[in-house]
Amino acid sequence: MDYSAFFQSKLQGLKDEGRYRVFAELERIRGQFPTATNHGQANKAPVKVWCSNDYLGMGQHPAVLAAMHEALDRSGAGAGGTRNIAGTNVDHIALEAELADLHGKEAALLFNSGYMSNMATLSTLAAQMPGCIVFSDALNHASMIEGIRHSRATCVIWKHNDLADLREKLAAVPPGTPKIIAFESVYSMDGDVAPIAEICDLADEFRAITYLDEVHAVGLYGPRGGGISERDGMAQRVDVIEGTLAKAYGVIGGYITGSAQLVDFVRSFASGFIFSTALPPAIAAGAKAAISHLKSSDAERAAMFANVARLRAGLDALGIEHLMNPSHIVPVMVRDAALCKRISDTLLDEYGIYVQPINYPTVPRGTERLRFTPSPLHGEADIAALLKALGEIWTQNSLSKAA
Amino acid sequence: MDYSAFFQSKLQGLKDEGRYRVFAELERIRGQFPTATNHGQANKAPVKVWCSNDYLGMGQHPAVLAAMHEALDRSGAGAGGTRNIAGTNVDHIALEAELADLHGKEAALLFNSGYMSNMATLSTLAAQMPGCIVFSDALNHASMIEGIRHSRATCVIWKHNDLADLREKLAAVPPGTPKIIAFESVYSMDGDVAPIAEICDLADEFRAITYLDEVHAVGLYGPRGGGISERDGMAQRVDVIEGTLAKAYGVIGGYITGSAQLVDFVRSFASGFIFSTALPPAIAAGAKAAISHLKSSDAERAAMFANVARLRAGLDALGIEHLMNPSHIVPVMVRDAALCKRISDTLLDEYGIYVQPINYPTVPRGTERLRFTPSPLHGEADIAALLKALGEIWTQNSLSKAA
Repeated sequence: MDYSAFFQSKLQGLKDEGRYRVFAELERIRGQFPTATNHGQANKAPVKVWCSNDYLGMGQHPAVLAAMHEALDRSGAGAGGTRNIAGTNVDHIALEAELADLHGKEAALLFNSGYMSNMATLSTLAAQMPGCIVFSDALNHASMIEGIRHSRATCVIWKHNDLADLREKLAAVPPGTPKIIAFESVYSMDGDVAPIAEICDLADEFRAITYLDEVHAVGLYGPRGGGISERDGMAQRVDVIEGTLAKAYGVIGGYITGSAQLVDFVRSFASGFIFSTALPPAIAAGAKAAISHLKSSDAERAAMFANVARLRAGLDALGIEHLMNPSHIVPVMVRDAALCKRISDTLLDEYGIYVQPINYPTVPRGTERLRFTPSPLHGEADIAALLKALGEIWTQNSLSKAA
Repeated sequence: MDYSAFFQSKLQGLKDEGRYRVFAELERIRGQFPTATNHGQANKAPVKVWCSNDYLGMGQHPAVLAAMHEALDRSGAGAGGTRNIAGTNVDHIALEAELADLHGKEAALLFNSGYMSNMATLSTLAAQMPGCIVFSDALNHASMIEGIRHSRATCVIWKHNDLADLREKLAAVPPGTPKIIAFESVYSMDGDVAPIAEICDLADEFRAITYLDEVHAVGLYGPRGGGISERDGMAQRVDVIEGTLAKAYGVIGGYITGSAQLVDFVRSFASGFIFSTALPPAIAAGAKAAISHLKSSDAERAAMFANVARLRAGLDALGIEHLMNPSHIVPVMVRDAALCKRISDTLLDEYGIYVQPINYPTVPRGTERLRFTPSPLHGEADIAALLKALGEIWTQNSLSKAA
């Protein structure tokens, strides 16, 4: 076995397919989001970031930063251990209480990332319940897929947001079988939204546990930022609401909320929770400040949705195709991998606009896109500059215009 | 399926076995490590923490905290995205360069935790190389075991630190088979150390990739804190050196280092890396400051080992059995699960000393212990107080004394 040749050939394969990733090397500028310094360019030019998942700019919110500075001064840098061995700090307990309250649940549990919260929770639930079958939406995130796969439980994939297909597949299984329906609320790449109420109806009918990933929704939907499940009044019907502290809340980490019993079960059996060092107290304090702020302030959400509407209206005026959806995610369709990459490069190099191309395998071939996430911090001038750039590029490339 | 009854019965099982975990609720006091406030007690008494993995107290080091405060003010709270989508900040690049330099490797890659670095790297390498067989030390950490398991590759477990057994098992496999030898340098619970040179000899002979977990060694061993592999002059012979930023470096996060090609391969194919939000810039900056400090300062290491020697000498004087090993980990043997828990409770309640009991399944039944980790910040009075407490408890419980 020539290991080097093997790695080389696999990497070359990615390059040949145009899928090899080169990371933009940014430096976020606190106080000037969405502006960042682009260290990947010789002149270190400022760029406007249009593809961040810090959806509301909470990563530079004074309340968040003040809480982090305070916790750093109070308790230092790290937690110092796993949650069970010297690592549980009062900031973790306070954040978990805040999260449980956010979703109206009895309990919450922190993980080091949203990825780990999905991976560890789904793998633990599905592996521990004898004969469990997981019903997984076809467009679920990689972390859910890997968690289900790790459990070794049978996984039944149902067509994306297709209730008839889900019903058919649930009905095909013996009634007493332990079942988990795993799905998301807002899907990352298309920005479409799951019919939570109807899925909960099916879960009741077939006695399944519902596991809902709200990472692209928490902080953004519902009067207190509790996600689509809060907006739709469905939070109490969902068994597990999973979310992230790294997107709308602007920090890092993932979590689940649910009944005290279910959360205690995951806490007690999930390897990825038990054997990981706890998040730093300052991270927990910053996340708690962000959640708390967005529970009472609607201004960030309102400004974001106004910018989403502005961008969409501008795209319409230019005849540039964007995928319609009811969310804050604006996918501008290019439908060609090489062109998508080239447009992204042109935006960065010639216009100082940073948006990552989204190509296969993140989205199906032929649906390549630029995924814009307007924040409350994008000004009218930013939107105008983006629209001007896209208009010029679409014209230069003779890109088809929408009807 | 009655889910609630199922969770309840599994939790009750843990309680019946004495394995149900109750987390100590601490508040670390920056500037006064290892002292913490114990919020689990009504009077919120101060406790001395004796089981932290913040081995050198870097979690309160002024250089680390200054770097974190500075990065918070400069770039805000979170990274704002995955490494590929708006999440790579200059602080990540600088930290990866620091880590590559630490281990004398071409490249490094950050993960959100040491758990994830092991899980994602081992699962990716073992799954991608066709027919790969992983040779895993019997005492490897849960994160390595789960990573190997997730890969679906064949896993051959060799007896802990047993070169003859490893040789025999390597020899039993066809020569052309891709192989990974996965092991640790300092093992967490016994504190013993792997024979790295001899394992590398076997890897050369049988053409295997060596994967070395140095999480309990980085920062602590070697003239620059490069771990046992640096101390033994073996770093260049090990293919992958994995480490953590959450123990001796006092912050959070994990990493691998290796050849540019291997690291690029993991970067490009590891789901747990690709689909996770990047660590906050302030975390990267704090970790870099800790590594940088410990590259040139030996004072913390020297003070820690002096305290380890003091504690061991005191235990010897009292005739209290402690597992001999060449590391900084001091396992005081109790050899009874219920007693181990009771001693831990007594230390906390009556002496203000916090050390978590280590019972099955973390260690084999009959080897239950208290695992002490003396830091440079434990004073002579702290050590004297601990020894006095242990002496009294050992006498009260008529515990057998070592010869």
